[in-house]
Amino acid sequence: MTESPLDPELARRLKRNADGLVCAVVVDHETSDVLMVAWMDDEALHRTLTTRRATYFSRSRQRLWVKGETSGHVQHVREVRLDCDADTLLVRVDQTGPACHTGTRSCFDTGERLLLADDGGPAGARPAGQV
Amino acid sequence: MTESPLDPELARRLKRNADGLVCAVVVDHETSDVLMVAWMDDEALHRTLTTRRATYFSRSRQRLWVKGETSGHVQHVREVRLDCDADTLLVRVDQTGPACHTGTRSCFDTGERLLLADDGGPAGARPAGQV
Repeated sequence: MTESPLDPELARRLKRNADGLVCAVVVDHETSDVLMVAWMDDEALHRTLTTRRATYFSRSRQRLWVKGETSGHVQHVREVRLDCDADTLLVRVDQTGPACHTGTRSCFDTGERLLLADDGGPAGARPAGQV
Repeated sequence: MTESPLDPELARRLKRNADGLVCAVVVDHETSDVLMVAWMDDEALHRTLTTRRATYFSRSRQRLWVKGETSGHVQHVREVRLDCDADTLLVRVDQTGPACHTGTRSCFDTGERLLLADDGGPAGARPAGQV
């Protein structure tokens, strides 16, 4: 195994999956909308932290992928957090252009991606008189 | 393989990983903060969609897990979306109590989980006179 380019303490904390990757949830810094979910290996995380240009590991292409390298829809990284069990990253970015390769702002936009519509909250939380 | 309890069209769309799971990003409906990331198999998604009580598949315990079943920190599901490549869910919830088992509101809170602090945005975006 190649030595990790990460700080040794961080490299020790990270809980990678069987493919050596951690999940990265990418959030729009301005709106807090979740834009996309991607994956990082140690090298992708190292480059993301040191360059503030969001860099992922493409599972389909099996290589590093600088977001926007061909589309121009780059992400400037504002903040990176690790979750309580150290297998997921929260990456806040300034997004240039759409984040989704389909051209939508986020990967969760458009009607056919809605599986369950908002019910207005639990019944007990509704103002009296509303059904 | 057991037949999926999901609507056949949705069951056909879902891109599960090698363990039969899809990633679920859980967001606070009120604040839009990312609370946690968990995993769902078809049964967990089916129960989440039909009961609006967030239900996941625990990879460590290898069983279904109704969020809050022991802690009381349940999640009422407001909305569920699927992403463009159908391997990630975005689940908006009304969270009762803290979402994280460590007692913090989200799994990304607390200082030691911060890997990279906000730099205030790309240099070009800063008001003149600021460094």
